[in-house]
Amino acid sequence: MSQPDHVTALDLNFPTRDELSPDFKKYFEVCDEKLGMVPNVLTAYSHNAAQLDVFSKFYNELMFGEGNLTTLEREMIAVAVSSQNHCFYCIVAHGAAVRNYSEDPALGELMAINYRAAELSQRHRSMLDFAVKMTISADAIEEEDRQALRDAGFSDQDIWDIANVAGFYNMTNRIASAVDMQPNPEYHAQAR
Amino acid sequence: MSQPDHVTALDLNFPTRDELSPDFKKYFEVCDEKLGMVPNVLTAYSHNAAQLDVFSKFYNELMFGEGNLTTLEREMIAVAVSSQNHCFYCIVAHGAAVRNYSEDPALGELMAINYRAAELSQRHRSMLDFAVKMTISADAIEEEDRQALRDAGFSDQDIWDIANVAGFYNMTNRIASAVDMQPNPEYHAQAR
Amino acid sequence: MSQPDHVTALDLNFPTRDELSPDFKKYFEVCDEKLGMVPNVLTAYSHNAAQLDVFSKFYNELMFGEGNLTTLEREMIAVAVSSQNHCFYCIVAHGAAVRNYSEDPALGELMAINYRAAELSQRHRSMLDFAVKMTISADAIEEEDRQALRDAGFSDQDIWDIANVAGFYNMTNRIASAVDMQPNPEYHAQAR
Amino acid sequence: MSQPDHVTALDLNFPTRDELSPDFKKYFEVCDEKLGMVPNVLTAYSHNAAQLDVFSKFYNELMFGEGNLTTLEREMIAVAVSSQNHCFYCIVAHGAAVRNYSEDPALGELMAINYRAAELSQRHRSMLDFAVKMTISADAIEEEDRQALRDAGFSDQDIWDIANVAGFYNMTNRIASAVDMQPNPEYHAQAR
Amino acid sequence: MSQPDHVTALDLNFPTRDELSPDFKKYFEVCDEKLGMVPNVLTAYSHNAAQLDVFSKFYNELMFGEGNLTTLEREMIAVAVSSQNHCFYCIVAHGAAVRNYSEDPALGELMAINYRAAELSQRHRSMLDFAVKMTISADAIEEEDRQALRDAGFSDQDIWDIANVAGFYNMTNRIASAVDMQPNPEYHAQAR
Amino acid sequence: MSQPDHVTALDLNFPTRDELSPDFKKYFEVCDEKLGMVPNVLTAYSHNAAQLDVFSKFYNELMFGEGNLTTLEREMIAVAVSSQNHCFYCIVAHGAAVRNYSEDPALGELMAINYRAAELSQRHRSMLDFAVKMTISADAIEEEDRQALRDAGFSDQDIWDIANVAGFYNMTNRIASAVDMQPNPEYHAQAR
Repeated sequence: MSQPDHVTALDLNFPTRDELSPDFKKYFEVCDEKLGMVPNVLTAYSHNAAQLDVFSKFYNELMFGEGNLTTLEREMIAVAVSSQNHCFYCIVAHGAAVRNYSEDPALGELMAINYRAAELSQRHRSMLDFAVKMTISADAIEEEDRQALRDAGFSDQDIWDIANVAGFYNMTNRIASAVDMQPNPEYHAQAR
Repeated sequence: MSQPDHVTALDLNFPTRDELSPDFKKYFEVCDEKLGMVPNVLTAYSHNAAQLDVFSKFYNELMFGEGNLTTLEREMIAVAVSSQNHCFYCIVAHGAAVRNYSEDPALGELMAINYRAAELSQRHRSMLDFAVKMTISADAIEEEDRQALRDAGFSDQDIWDIANVAGFYNMTNRIASAVDMQPNPEYHAQAR
Repeated sequence: MSQPDHVTALDLNFPTRDELSPDFKKYFEVCDEKLGMVPNVLTAYSHNAAQLDVFSKFYNELMFGEGNLTTLEREMIAVAVSSQNHCFYCIVAHGAAVRNYSEDPALGELMAINYRAAELSQRHRSMLDFAVKMTISADAIEEEDRQALRDAGFSDQDIWDIANVAGFYNMTNRIASAVDMQPNPEYHAQAR
Repeated sequence: MSQPDHVTALDLNFPTRDELSPDFKKYFEVCDEKLGMVPNVLTAYSHNAAQLDVFSKFYNELMFGEGNLTTLEREMIAVAVSSQNHCFYCIVAHGAAVRNYSEDPALGELMAINYRAAELSQRHRSMLDFAVKMTISADAIEEEDRQALRDAGFSDQDIWDIANVAGFYNMTNRIASAVDMQPNPEYHAQAR
Repeated sequence: MSQPDHVTALDLNFPTRDELSPDFKKYFEVCDEKLGMVPNVLTAYSHNAAQLDVFSKFYNELMFGEGNLTTLEREMIAVAVSSQNHCFYCIVAHGAAVRNYSEDPALGELMAINYRAAELSQRHRSMLDFAVKMTISADAIEEEDRQALRDAGFSDQDIWDIANVAGFYNMTNRIASAVDMQPNPEYHAQAR
Repeated sequence: MSQPDHVTALDLNFPTRDELSPDFKKYFEVCDEKLGMVPNVLTAYSHNAAQLDVFSKFYNELMFGEGNLTTLEREMIAVAVSSQNHCFYCIVAHGAAVRNYSEDPALGELMAINYRAAELSQRHRSMLDFAVKMTISADAIEEEDRQALRDAGFSDQDIWDIANVAGFYNMTNRIASAVDMQPNPEYHAQAR
């Protein structure tokens, strides 16, 4: 067996569905319906109801909140960042999302392996260059890096959003690796 | 002038106090009272009310929510992680917090420069070793790294919390550097 | 379009099938039959008949020649090494091979993303640890690294073979990236 | 106790003041008067009178000898280099010097954390870019790096001096870390 | 004794001259005549006749096959790549080749230590820049890197050849280090 | 021409022999007699008489002053450190010194390329491990690193000396690379 059979390597007490708050019971049911599963990251956070609440709200706002970045663009950032950090959970889960949103299976692989090998618009290339520089050497980011995004048509609000999404996956990549979070097996075959 | 005179390098529209929601108007007033200022990170997020809401709730839960890690320990993680990422905002703001909570000015400097040069308990040393490994090479974390925390007396729930705090600052360090977020000048002299 | 529509980014004259030597005309027909395509790496080398000859023989000997390493093990090394080097061509082509030989789609992803997140036997773990150390810091390999392989049951001849396979992909990864070699699109959906 | 209570982690025999040579007895008295302490680096070298002599002369010539670099500039180089090397001793001692000479507490923090976050003149920015490149990848320095200094108004003699100061702290950072040299506690509160 | 007295650290059975195939018996005799020795890399591969055959043919084609790169240029690539990988075997053996072909002892040292310190033509400088970038960060190579070679007068076929030679030594460097392959002592004094 | 024909790339005014102070005139004459040349590092510093004085005294004390490290050991440290920093000047000049003092040409090459490939006593191996760790990641040195030296028979005074020699070449390597200092050609053929 190559893929570990656990949510995380930590011994945490996950509530049953009935033990969840009504809001999260409903949220998990929506996941079941829409995704056919509850993503393991939510199960992992469910051992701490307060953290589950704030994490899921933060996640949903960054990924689905208002803004000019499309959901596919946010997912592309997620996977390109996760590729640098070699995060198994995030590449599997968000690689599937890129394939789903783009209906382009190769795009998911390109984000997961090396975004520089993809044929991208200036918009997407500059967006990912910024996100990857944030991942590898954020302390070296300077005005010319932000200007490259403006030159590609992004507003300062968009730059803020790119920074937040790229920052977010630098957080979740590290948490997932730190606790050996495993992705739901359903992701592997999605949208190939 | 060495320290830039802006909140971030982005051109974002920050609301006036009166334009803030009642909750945040009150929150900012509490900051004024307790801290003598509104931390620039909150001002920065205030251009997007929805993001300010979820970010501040997530932040407050991780730093002040229930759990076995003391607030000082969470701040020590914040600064040790930020040191690796050379994040000016976070080291200045949370370095002050370490000095404040510990009443030990040198401890703040040690976390900011090189935690290995400090004389730490096994508990604190293993906690920071884990947080720094998450920062530098999270993909190389394995069971023996988690076991080292258990051997130092941490529960699996504590490990989860350490991972979340360390992950969080790997996010905020990168966002702050990406947008050139500047710390409030008040921090520099605090608790020296 | 995310995936470039070329074999490599270089302007090389590829022979038609009829211009190939009889041996390679036959070899390419066997590829068509068995794989449903001629792998682009062979097309790329075909512009130089002498190089195609020696490269394909060297490749076939290392991957399919006599020895105690199974073909799956050689492919696992190929993908784990290619993951470190972020080689799009090699991860796509040999990731498919791992999925095919193992009939375990997740194993291909694990090798491609982070072999440390897989549940592996001591044999496979030590084999990949050695191959990845060769990739990242070969100059730091010492007797204890070789001894770890012996302790996992490998003979000195096996160690030689592991070193040759791991070395080989450190070559092909770099050549593929240097010339922007693109994998055949057929690989993406194989054995998911 | 976070800060170790020793000069270095080595067991070295330091002479008493009366055992010092007359010249160094006087030198240490001058330190007492001017600085309120004898810097621990001098105490550390004092176990070997011959080394103390040549080290202190070399140090004084580089930091206070003739040349066009101001003392503040030399100290800025010292701290920016030490920041890359995470040297506790040097950042604490020379960070205080930057604060003292500049009367700008934030400048010391900026040099200690990330000089790129400071608002610097072209002269200072190019000077620190060169010093930091020397620290991280000296073997990649080429004529264009030296030309950037000339373009910022530095003479070739100035470049030599910048190189010597930056080189010097790459030495002392490593010696201090190697022997766990601890800074005098007096530095922490200076010029905040 | 500083230099280990073995061909590799592995326990492999090398055939006697008489046990070699007639072709390789002859090949080794030619080595004796021309070089005064059989290079240890060939002895090492000789434990596996099939591998010796394909390796030596691949090697000879890349280093001595048709193409516009001179043998000295191929050897310069070999040493500059090996310098990055700190490979004792390859720097000693191919450093001697650079000295022999160039009749310039310093050129061998420059390739072995830091090619950027040499005074090179644009052709040679761009060739080595590409080979070294392939060695350190092949996944970051893009069209502008290939264009720099074209601008220096290389054809796309030449770029392919440069990539293959640079790739080849990234393989052999790692194999040599992995098995602790030792160079024949004769190399050290050659062409000094 | 591969080797640049200058002392450094900077435009510095070197005094004639007659313009040197009597002490240095004599010192350079001794160099001529003993070494057959004045090392370029001394010529380079000669443009600043005060710096030449303190640098040469510091150098001579560290390399030839009292202490338990043999001159060969100090030179081995010099070359092993310089190898990590890819410093052309220092490897050429001090590689020759290792060959001269050891009468073992291969030892010089091993220090210059990869000290781990040499067969070394525990004393020499631990000494070089410490010097190289100081070079690469001094901030990670801890008590166990110092203890490894004590276990190999070094006193705390010896550790201090090792740290100073290793630190010194981390300075000179960077200065030499920063100013493109070229070694005297005479070194190349010495003691091969």
